[in-house]
Amino acid sequence: MSKKNAFYAQSGGVTAVINATACGLLETARRHKTKIGKVYAGCNGIIGALTENLIDTSKETATAIAALRYTPGGAFGSCRYKLNNVEKNRSEYERLLAVFAAHDIAYFFYNGGGDSQDTVHKVSLLSKAMGYPLICIGIPKTVDNDLPITDNSPGFGSVAKYVAVATREAGLDIASMHATSTKVFIMEVMGRHTGWIAAASGLAAEKKGEPPHIILFPEIVFNEDAFLNQVNKIVHYYGYCVIVLAEGVRDSKNEFLVASNTSDAFGHKQLGGAAPALAQRIKTKLGFKYHWAVPDYLQRSARHIASAIDVEQAYALGKAAIELAIKGETGIMPIIVRRASRSYQWKIGLANLADVANQEKKLPRSFITADGFHITQRCRNYLRPLIQGEDYPPYKQGLPNYIHLRRHKVAKKLEKYVIQF
Amino acid sequence: MSKKNAFYAQSGGVTAVINATACGLLETARRHKTKIGKVYAGCNGIIGALTENLIDTSKETATAIAALRYTPGGAFGSCRYKLNNVEKNRSEYERLLAVFAAHDIAYFFYNGGGDSQDTVHKVSLLSKAMGYPLICIGIPKTVDNDLPITDNSPGFGSVAKYVAVATREAGLDIASMHATSTKVFIMEVMGRHTGWIAAASGLAAEKKGEPPHIILFPEIVFNEDAFLNQVNKIVHYYGYCVIVLAEGVRDSKNEFLVASNTSDAFGHKQLGGAAPALAQRIKTKLGFKYHWAVPDYLQRSARHIASAIDVEQAYALGKAAIELAIKGETGIMPIIVRRASRSYQWKIGLANLADVANQEKKLPRSFITADGFHITQRCRNYLRPLIQGEDYPPYKQGLPNYIHLRRHKVAKKLEKYVIQF
Repeated sequence: MSKKNAFYAQSGGVTAVINATACGLLETARRHKTKIGKVYAGCNGIIGALTENLIDTSKETATAIAALRYTPGGAFGSCRYKLNNVEKNRSEYERLLAVFAAHDIAYFFYNGGGDSQDTVHKVSLLSKAMGYPLICIGIPKTVDNDLPITDNSPGFGSVAKYVAVATREAGLDIASMHATSTKVFIMEVMGRHTGWIAAASGLAAEKKGEPPHIILFPEIVFNEDAFLNQVNKIVHYYGYCVIVLAEGVRDSKNEFLVASNTSDAFGHKQLGGAAPALAQRIKTKLGFKYHWAVPDYLQRSARHIASAIDVEQAYALGKAAIELAIKGETGIMPIIVRRASRSYQWKIGLANLADVANQEKKLPRSFITADGFHITQRCRNYLRPLIQGEDYPPYKQGLPNYIHLRRHKVAKKLEKYVIQF
Repeated sequence: MSKKNAFYAQSGGVTAVINATACGLLETARRHKTKIGKVYAGCNGIIGALTENLIDTSKETATAIAALRYTPGGAFGSCRYKLNNVEKNRSEYERLLAVFAAHDIAYFFYNGGGDSQDTVHKVSLLSKAMGYPLICIGIPKTVDNDLPITDNSPGFGSVAKYVAVATREAGLDIASMHATSTKVFIMEVMGRHTGWIAAASGLAAEKKGEPPHIILFPEIVFNEDAFLNQVNKIVHYYGYCVIVLAEGVRDSKNEFLVASNTSDAFGHKQLGGAAPALAQRIKTKLGFKYHWAVPDYLQRSARHIASAIDVEQAYALGKAAIELAIKGETGIMPIIVRRASRSYQWKIGLANLADVANQEKKLPRSFITADGFHITQRCRNYLRPLIQGEDYPPYKQGLPNYIHLRRHKVAKKLEKYVIQF
């Protein structure tokens, strides 16, 4: 294959380390200039490809690219946009390939979660069917850790570390104050469908009685009576109770905790989040003074407390993507393979996109204690390696010195294209 | 004075660095064993003195005491309990002095905010009136930074750094996603009466257009129309808007944002916090997709991202308290005196407790921009030195290795005393 250009896009919710993957990919591409020409990045993800808004990464300095390793967020912009089925919107795929053709792009790297891997897979199939030679490689990324096959997904280790650190620190706060103040503290973390992030809070508890005392997982149906009994028992035994709650916890009617009990003056549901709703139920039924926290985007952007192993793996997967592309591999996703847990050893492996697309890895039942309120040793063995090591960003004037790229736009060659949202 | 014992108590909401003050005080006391005997700490603050629950700090190892420097929360327990006026509850003060007498205590160190300084002041006056020789020294501590006279209060610099870092990181997240997702992000921070913490978020914005775009202070009456106009303008100009809101912001009817518009299915007010309430108003009036965060205790316990200068000052004030006591000073509070802002220079000074008690330092109007939505250069000059430097705790297995003290209880000598809450 002659020297062709590449396209890289970030997709879905961003993480503390998705730019570390971009860094690994771009630095590796620059080391293989005889094989890969320019790397164009999609401005705001795949939308940038469709609308021909391409960023020429070759205009960024080596220093700027290196700084991506420690900068959170998506440096080129990401998006929540899923391509339709080929049958429903074939023109969208054709447009994508037209843009690639116009800019001599023969490599497509898509950095995202399950939906994104599904998209790369479809593009891969269609490019073959249409006879357009395109190397298609998915790169895993999701704080939710719900991608199958891979040991874990970049972004998860860092949010796991954030949540465990926050639980330990806030736990010390409540432990100091409970005699006369807050008895119950609830932290709501991300996880619509899976409890991986909530589970990570459990690492903060190394000895019996240490917070968190209760973890609520989307995988376990919420039972209010059992829960309130547990809270009551813990407060009477330890004096206070720290609860970590995944946002996606549902009750036996399959309703989110927040939707079932909360409405504001306008009659809108889901104003307050699950944590305040749950706190209110505890107050009403048990009478305990409470506080609650919802770190929201803070948890997934907290590069200042990123897991070193997560950063390393994010970078390695970006690097692997280029190396695989050069070898001519396509329709695949590089993954993390765990070789040993105690003294964590891992390597890069491969998964077929066909096997990855549209699957969701839930927390196994064996990772949750019998009563449904905490994690097992097996879960700890899985999680602990993923939060190892600190990888502090550089600071300037007391704040992390994150990079803002120049984001030099490539001149457009095609007609304007309007996306139907 | 012959060699007498000392009593130290932590009071009110704990911080990331109140234990650093304890560390400075205890290490300094240990270096002056010819002057000061044992240091007893109140178990759960002043309640520990009243109920004769004293912790013998001499039973802790030097390593454990040193580890207090990097451990958040209150190692001996704190409390929200204010002694009544002497006229109303003289017996409470008499009990305090009885416990001090029983344990040969001639030094009283009280580490807290405005209310606590008021208490030390009253105890100081009463001990004189009753002829009980007692050195009374207040040590400042409050994340709210509302103590007068001192340049700043330990705990504030670290929460300021946390809030500025979080704003910068979450800001990068929203900047990446706004094209197809969240347009407005609101972070609610502490500050019932003062906007110091909210103001600190402003440090994240170094160039025009960088988040936060709007800061809401308790010192400025909330004007919904002006606010919504500003949000609308910013979203249309930058594509997204990051708002930092102090929990204590009130409208022209003097109502908290949350109380005026939110109630749950049980009819309870103040379920959700100000951030979700404000987010809902934006959604209703402007239609923008939003996210909100409430870090709550996470912000004041975040020792992992503490300001190095804050840790240093917290330690220095604990050290100064002992040195002043040895000199025979009483009825005073060591403070931070700012000697220069650009290249920050500070020293320890003194304030009379009579001047400190029951005063609240609000954000000066000159620290807030004319439109009421951001901080001025003058404010930046004040705040910036306080977040300088990182002082990372040691890590073990991926998590901060915070200390749990042995908390060896001193044998009781007096009758049981029941506190009337």
